[in-house]
Amino acid sequence: MAWRAALRSKAVIPGLLSCSSHGRLCASPTFITQRNNSTSPKIKVDYDQTTGVAVMHMQSPPVNSLSLDFLTELCISLEKLEMDKGCRGLIITSNQPKVFSAGLDILEMYGKSPEHCGEFWKVVQEMWLKLYGSNMVTIAAIGGSSPAGGCLLSLTCDYRIMADNPRYTISLNETKLGIIAPFWFKETMVNTVGHRNTEVALQLGLLYKPAEALKIGLVDQLVPEDQVFTVATQTMTKWLTIPEHARQITKSMMRNPTIDKLRTNREADIQNFVSFITKESIQKSLRMYMEMLKQRKA
Amino acid sequence: MAWRAALRSKAVIPGLLSCSSHGRLCASPTFITQRNNSTSPKIKVDYDQTTGVAVMHMQSPPVNSLSLDFLTELCISLEKLEMDKGCRGLIITSNQPKVFSAGLDILEMYGKSPEHCGEFWKVVQEMWLKLYGSNMVTIAAIGGSSPAGGCLLSLTCDYRIMADNPRYTISLNETKLGIIAPFWFKETMVNTVGHRNTEVALQLGLLYKPAEALKIGLVDQLVPEDQVFTVATQTMTKWLTIPEHARQITKSMMRNPTIDKLRTNREADIQNFVSFITKESIQKSLRMYMEMLKQRKA
Amino acid sequence: MAWRAALRSKAVIPGLLSCSSHGRLCASPTFITQRNNSTSPKIKVDYDQTTGVAVMHMQSPPVNSLSLDFLTELCISLEKLEMDKGCRGLIITSNQPKVFSAGLDILEMYGKSPEHCGEFWKVVQEMWLKLYGSNMVTIAAIGGSSPAGGCLLSLTCDYRIMADNPRYTISLNETKLGIIAPFWFKETMVNTVGHRNTEVALQLGLLYKPAEALKIGLVDQLVPEDQVFTVATQTMTKWLTIPEHARQITKSMMRNPTIDKLRTNREADIQNFVSFITKESIQKSLRMYMEMLKQRKA
Repeated sequence: MAWRAALRSKAVIPGLLSCSSHGRLCASPTFITQRNNSTSPKIKVDYDQTTGVAVMHMQSPPVNSLSLDFLTELCISLEKLEMDKGCRGLIITSNQPKVFSAGLDILEMYGKSPEHCGEFWKVVQEMWLKLYGSNMVTIAAIGGSSPAGGCLLSLTCDYRIMADNPRYTISLNETKLGIIAPFWFKETMVNTVGHRNTEVALQLGLLYKPAEALKIGLVDQLVPEDQVFTVATQTMTKWLTIPEHARQITKSMMRNPTIDKLRTNREADIQNFVSFITKESIQKSLRMYMEMLKQRKA
Repeated sequence: MAWRAALRSKAVIPGLLSCSSHGRLCASPTFITQRNNSTSPKIKVDYDQTTGVAVMHMQSPPVNSLSLDFLTELCISLEKLEMDKGCRGLIITSNQPKVFSAGLDILEMYGKSPEHCGEFWKVVQEMWLKLYGSNMVTIAAIGGSSPAGGCLLSLTCDYRIMADNPRYTISLNETKLGIIAPFWFKETMVNTVGHRNTEVALQLGLLYKPAEALKIGLVDQLVPEDQVFTVATQTMTKWLTIPEHARQITKSMMRNPTIDKLRTNREADIQNFVSFITKESIQKSLRMYMEMLKQRKA
Repeated sequence: MAWRAALRSKAVIPGLLSCSSHGRLCASPTFITQRNNSTSPKIKVDYDQTTGVAVMHMQSPPVNSLSLDFLTELCISLEKLEMDKGCRGLIITSNQPKVFSAGLDILEMYGKSPEHCGEFWKVVQEMWLKLYGSNMVTIAAIGGSSPAGGCLLSLTCDYRIMADNPRYTISLNETKLGIIAPFWFKETMVNTVGHRNTEVALQLGLLYKPAEALKIGLVDQLVPEDQVFTVATQTMTKWLTIPEHARQITKSMMRNPTIDKLRTNREADIQNFVSFITKESIQKSLRMYMEMLKQRKA
């Protein structure tokens, strides 16, 4: 745990599987000078009542790791927006440079009790259930890398706009760390890029550059880096012209079969995750991975 | 109803959701001068016993709206052809200029009794069941626009050849009018263009130009406008060289899972449609849509 | 049966549905001069313990027909490799020129007892179950044509590298002979190239040239003919860097739903095949097909 504190002291709480992009991310001094203040909100929500569009700015340095606290905050914000009838659209974006989100926070799974791991997994499920099934139009404005859980977050949205910068990557690359994308991560990806692309990507833990991601359909549009948010806003305007009730029912029809599978297997899915992640061999993989990250920093 | 008569007097009975293409369609005086004579057949069937190929010419001015009468006639013709062992192929085409079919006739759903709406929906189902499960080789020769139900009609076929004219559009655009494509429309489209293309198209009620439709696989081939029927005939000849029994069983294997879903939920699907379409809010949407069409004509 | 003996004397035991490519294959005298010696192994396995990679060289002249003996040998070899913890990768290739495998051996289905046909089908299932569900990384190095069962064999692998020679073709073309690809052939293809590509390919019994096969995703990579094996070896090295346990579980997650369908319907699938293949009309189709092949040789 001293070790963990050491990591924390550098304020590098890398998201799960941000490994391959980490070297690049660290090239910027931004990441090692910023500190995450756990008392300040990790997500800033701007809600414009005149347009009915909310924007979630993820602002948890250095890389918007999806920690228990982060995801809890995200779910609470989502619930509020969803209950506000006037809020019809949600844009999710990052205030951190070069990264959308680096994915699940590895420190929530390493050296933790089964109870903690289970609690963490439950909120990961909750985030997915709320977003994939949201009645709002949801758009991911992806201004940087988005591996693993960060990619999942974007895949829950209705539309993905990514910065056209070949230094950024995106996909579900869990396998590379010895971790497994669960069935609902997998189905979300299959629903987006098809069975074969998913099979190859998940088996190899591939990360795609923007052009490759566009080609297989993992993102919908590439734009110059400084226009990601502007284009997201314009796209939202277009989506909001669609009759709302019909759009929502249509979205449910497309996504409910996948959502229902998790809803009816939620407890078993938590048990699977906990028994897997607390295995000695998996914990060892996580430790080696974190030590590699630590050495890179040194 | 006087209002409705007024519409009829102009002989403009637009198909459901032909809205976005209607302006263009109306550019031609053809549509406002032709009258639909309800006693004359809405479909002309030419059956060549030497080749075993039947051609259905849809000829219900102005835009081959899929009315109760039209669909009943279609189903009866289909049943006859299907029972004729010698009839092995069917080409569906339109005798109306610039349009394949503008889709379901909105007048069968507006201001009608639940019983009438249910009767109408049943024949829509019947058309789909007969065509998607047909033992014949079915080819859509799409010489014009084909929104909503017109698109569905073409999607039931084994092959779609469309005129390469960027003024024409095709897709399931029901959402734009506040209507919802039911699950079997959706699954037919997923089976053709995949889950993600369907999700975007149905949520936004998109209509695709021929080049875009070809790119996502909504149609199989584009040809110059005056060659659509010729190429359909040539394609049919090729398909008819395939051993028939093996082709039919293979087709069933691909399509029966979807067909079975409707067969086992047919009554519930009718109830869903009737309770949805007779809602005050939906009727209001339909009225506004028709008034918009009326104004465009004026 | 004298007729069959005549065929055997030319040592041409064509794979099921190698029909359309047979003319080209026969252009080479190789195929009519080589004899298959049933006592020599039909598959040569080279297993390099230092790399953990095994190579299966199919060497059953002239066209690696998947006979009962061939498939039995294949399954026994697979079982041995699978049980060897050190063996992590398998490359499947052909020692026969211009062909990967021409598919199921028609002589195992023509003029045979229902018992024999059932025994044969069981080993076809077994081959598919073992390969599609293999824990090893499996790569098909496709240096020639691969119709029907040969294509299925390659589709069970994790990755397909094909020689970029337009004289070669690949796909499931069973329908052309009046035979039907069973549901698990179909689902393997749907998992690879999607529903619509499969529907068209299977209905028409299409064979694709390498460039077309690459375009729809039936193969993953084209390389010059003399580099197929080298690239397969390099690709294997890349796949073996992935954490094994996570890759295996991920592969199972992608493929088990399809595998389970056959496992739970295995006996019924055998009965379906036997009752179909022993039909008088189907046997007649097979005879006509073989006579056509015989005439081509004469």
